[in-house]
Amino acid sequence: MFEKVLIANRGEIALRIHRACREMGIRTVAVHSTADAEAMNVRLADESVCIGPPASRDSYLNMAAIISAATITGADAIHPGIGFLSENAAFAQMVEEHGITFIGPSPEHLIMMGDKVQAKDAAKRFGIPVVPGSDGEITGEAEAKRIAGETGYPVLIKAAAGGGGKGMRVATSEADLMAAYTMARTEAKASFGNDAVYMEKYLSHPRHIEIQIIGDSHGNVVHLGERDCSLQRRHQKVLEEAPSPALNAEQRARIGKIAADAMRSMGYKSVGTIEFLFQDGEFYFIEMNTRLQIEHPVTEMITGIDLVREQIRVASGAPLSFTQDDVVINGHAFECRINAEDPETFMPSPGRVTDFHAAGGLGVRVDSALYSGYRVPPNYDSLIAKLVVHGRTRNEALMRLRRALEEMVIGGIKTNIPLHSRLIAAPDFINGAYDIRWLEKFVAGEI
Amino acid sequence: MFEKVLIANRGEIALRIHRACREMGIRTVAVHSTADAEAMNVRLADESVCIGPPASRDSYLNMAAIISAATITGADAIHPGIGFLSENAAFAQMVEEHGITFIGPSPEHLIMMGDKVQAKDAAKRFGIPVVPGSDGEITGEAEAKRIAGETGYPVLIKAAAGGGGKGMRVATSEADLMAAYTMARTEAKASFGNDAVYMEKYLSHPRHIEIQIIGDSHGNVVHLGERDCSLQRRHQKVLEEAPSPALNAEQRARIGKIAADAMRSMGYKSVGTIEFLFQDGEFYFIEMNTRLQIEHPVTEMITGIDLVREQIRVASGAPLSFTQDDVVINGHAFECRINAEDPETFMPSPGRVTDFHAAGGLGVRVDSALYSGYRVPPNYDSLIAKLVVHGRTRNEALMRLRRALEEMVIGGIKTNIPLHSRLIAAPDFINGAYDIRWLEKFVAGEI
Repeated sequence: MFEKVLIANRGEIALRIHRACREMGIRTVAVHSTADAEAMNVRLADESVCIGPPASRDSYLNMAAIISAATITGADAIHPGIGFLSENAAFAQMVEEHGITFIGPSPEHLIMMGDKVQAKDAAKRFGIPVVPGSDGEITGEAEAKRIAGETGYPVLIKAAAGGGGKGMRVATSEADLMAAYTMARTEAKASFGNDAVYMEKYLSHPRHIEIQIIGDSHGNVVHLGERDCSLQRRHQKVLEEAPSPALNAEQRARIGKIAADAMRSMGYKSVGTIEFLFQDGEFYFIEMNTRLQIEHPVTEMITGIDLVREQIRVASGAPLSFTQDDVVINGHAFECRINAEDPETFMPSPGRVTDFHAAGGLGVRVDSALYSGYRVPPNYDSLIAKLVVHGRTRNEALMRLRRALEEMVIGGIKTNIPLHSRLIAAPDFINGAYDIRWLEKFVAGEI
Repeated sequence: MFEKVLIANRGEIALRIHRACREMGIRTVAVHSTADAEAMNVRLADESVCIGPPASRDSYLNMAAIISAATITGADAIHPGIGFLSENAAFAQMVEEHGITFIGPSPEHLIMMGDKVQAKDAAKRFGIPVVPGSDGEITGEAEAKRIAGETGYPVLIKAAAGGGGKGMRVATSEADLMAAYTMARTEAKASFGNDAVYMEKYLSHPRHIEIQIIGDSHGNVVHLGERDCSLQRRHQKVLEEAPSPALNAEQRARIGKIAADAMRSMGYKSVGTIEFLFQDGEFYFIEMNTRLQIEHPVTEMITGIDLVREQIRVASGAPLSFTQDDVVINGHAFECRINAEDPETFMPSPGRVTDFHAAGGLGVRVDSALYSGYRVPPNYDSLIAKLVVHGRTRNEALMRLRRALEEMVIGGIKTNIPLHSRLIAAPDFINGAYDIRWLEKFVAGEI
């Protein structure tokens, strides 16, 4: 096992990794920008190294500075956390070239899954279902009809050179296919100077379902069930839960097996998450995250497995400490992402936290690097705390979340706690009846 | 189910009960002395009533004031918590006479188990093993020899009128029995004016093992395994764990069944704990606590069962929500009782908490009514927080406890956190090799 791990990250996730190391008897090195000198993970680490000024590109993205810090302190592994350099193949490579272990997958897998086209190709090759549609540009009306017939209506026609919703049309039946096709091409031509369009099945009310997997270097890969992350605003997840209220046992087992089998064929050796859209009982690959996810705690709560500990173990060459049969889903968990932001305008709200009081008691977990007197710097992501609850049933967990939100105190700055409180009181949320578009409508007051 | 519960207690246990009520959708009434007006449980409750001045006898033991508060606020049940009126049969009776439910066992069971002699008789009657010895006074040398022969050596000879170690002698073999018998009688006569002595088996290195049970009003009683509470100083528990490192599965199942069977025969209808001394594979009844225990969270952590919720449910007449077969022991848990006291002298250390920061993360639970700025009043028990951890194995839980203790911050007053940190680093503790006398010796620097 490693003797000393450098944690190349900040905030609550750096603290999360520090905790796992401490519990494994591994010494920790914190690296930090000048803005984070007073951070809790820095205070708790065995050693710390300042790696640059506040701007991320000069500190948390500064590969040379981080590798120097590891060399100077004699760290034998680097944990990249989430974001920053965690999916950077060049960094992983450079770390390994310095004789240091990168706690994550191989550079090949980082590259493969870091590119949307390669990732979708790989998914297809390894048996993961993708959104059906044309393989590339549609060359004429006949082809459009044939493909739409295969995928089934509604279909989405999109400009190949597109973006921002331009050159995009939905056809709900063959009757309006030709009009949609023509309009999409015309708009594409006008907007991008290129009338190439492609087609895929249109999902009108999908959920975001993701499967947690972990593999070791001995050929073992297991899945740990799904997380439902459909509650998003501007593609940012806000509140996650596991299991998903939308999946049945057969669907869960099916997609879990597909994910684990694919990763086993691929030789994947770390934690990873395969994200899907889910609608009408079918799963459609979006992308794979080749790292820990912010929302990993909900999986930990329902499986009892410490994902960061296992991630570190497998990186050291140890086999997984459990098998697929050992993974038993127990109860229900929610996670609220608490951000330093105005709950109405969503503008960031950095500044001094005059008072921090975490919720406590049975079934409540708080992952946060906040403390009373801490100044939230304006330079980074606004995530400051994760409130995670577990209960034997979804309703028990929901009631617990409600009371825990009442107990949380974060004074001196604005947070989105009021949004969470409103959100979990909404009947659609209580009934688990939401898709990836629901939260935007809720925030806009349309629900 | 109840609509409104009055919580007749203070501090962390009042908050614990409030949380359970909140999660069940039950409104709460806090009662408090003038010293506790700013307490967290008072702030969070739906309603609060001041029931008197700081002295417990005028507030938390003031039955009339508490029942008036319940009547005025329309509470349909009273939860007495731990200590104070929780085992007071007269109070339970008075509550019921006002048409309010007492959340606890029947007055008959409170009376039976509240008296040491009656409790021991009841234990014997219901098949619970007790310390063997003379049934009362030993009437002569021949009887002393006969009983010692039956119980086995060593035996303890104790003054019937005794206390404080006076008139108490241990005989390790028949050779020193007569000398011990004579000296005990002489000392008893000199100290208490009464030379009556009795005899029981002497346990030289017992552990304190207690069995958690719960019964409902439909004849169901289940046990939830044991807690090892051997780490005591002056009969006060300091750190508890479950399961006990000293018990094997057969012993656990045997004593659990004995406890549950006895309580079923007795018609016991609430949570309760049967305390034993345990030595050389045998259990010896000490007493029964007919209420929640401070250390109940360790049982919750390894069973996943919310004991306070279940206690409230069964008090309302609902059946237990689980059966004996549903109780599965999962992993290991520790609880540190954090007291406002000097870790060297054990003198109480009330006063203003300038900074409170709870440990967080996976497997960590903090039950505490502290907050930054709270003034710990000098009038009550010094328990201010319970740090509870869970892990898949004893070692994992122990490593987690170590890192969680490092994270706890309680500024402005002295606490026994340094004692806990020293204690959990002791090889005997790490090996689980301690009995009820170990902590006293450790504190005295003899280990």
